[in-house]
Amino acid sequence: MNWLDEVKWDAEGLIPAIAQEVGSNDVLMFAFMNRDSLARTAELGEAVYWSRSRRRLWRKGEESGNVQKVREVRLDCDNDVVLLKVEQTGGGPGEATVACHTGRRSCFYQVLRDGHWQVVDPVLKDPERIYR
Amino acid sequence: MNWLDEVKWDAEGLIPAIAQEVGSNDVLMFAFMNRDSLARTAELGEAVYWSRSRRRLWRKGEESGNVQKVREVRLDCDNDVVLLKVEQTGGGPGEATVACHTGRRSCFYQVLRDGHWQVVDPVLKDPERIYR
Repeated sequence: MNWLDEVKWDAEGLIPAIAQEVGSNDVLMFAFMNRDSLARTAELGEAVYWSRSRRRLWRKGEESGNVQKVREVRLDCDNDVVLLKVEQTGGGPGEATVACHTGRRSCFYQVLRDGHWQVVDPVLKDPERIYR
Repeated sequence: MNWLDEVKWDAEGLIPAIAQEVGSNDVLMFAFMNRDSLARTAELGEAVYWSRSRRRLWRKGEESGNVQKVREVRLDCDNDVVLLKVEQTGGGPGEATVACHTGRRSCFYQVLRDGHWQVVDPVLKDPERIYR
């Protein structure tokens, strides 16, 4: 049986995917994958997601250069969530490694404190420089 | 503005939630939350999810005793994914701390190797002892 057939895709043919950084174990981002994107991720060794808004495959870093090298692909107990262990790369030598389009390391930079979402992580790279 | 109003709930009123262990930073599990479950999680300081199959609130550990103490709630850049930093508790003194209903620490115990999903993490607690 093909390993892709063991994945329980949802009604739209998608599966949630969590990207976690190798080493720090920080959760960097969350996105969806369809069958093609998971197959491509395994083939390339680089994260390829499915963009629900643009309705197309989206190789992480295709515009920003912030490619995610995939070191391990894990599946949960219900076969319906994927966890990628990734090495997040930057846009070039000496560049900060950012996974978030806001220029932060991780997309999860807002923390609930005293009934408000507070931004707690710094912008490491100007988004205008990421998407130039 | 209420912090719950800033969350972008999906068409079914849900948001994906990732539970990550404080300290190890291991990703333990993934589930969904609705507005009530996120509000209850913040009030109680314990993870309360929405069970899509049972269509009801599900306080993690209500049957197993494996409660998740929530130390931090984070939100991503699109306001549509939640990350919980949790302290996973066991069923009692000396009990292994397991988040997964299979008796493993984490739900992500299957790794893709050579075109197959391989189980790589041990069962720490017999599921029959978890749900007795």
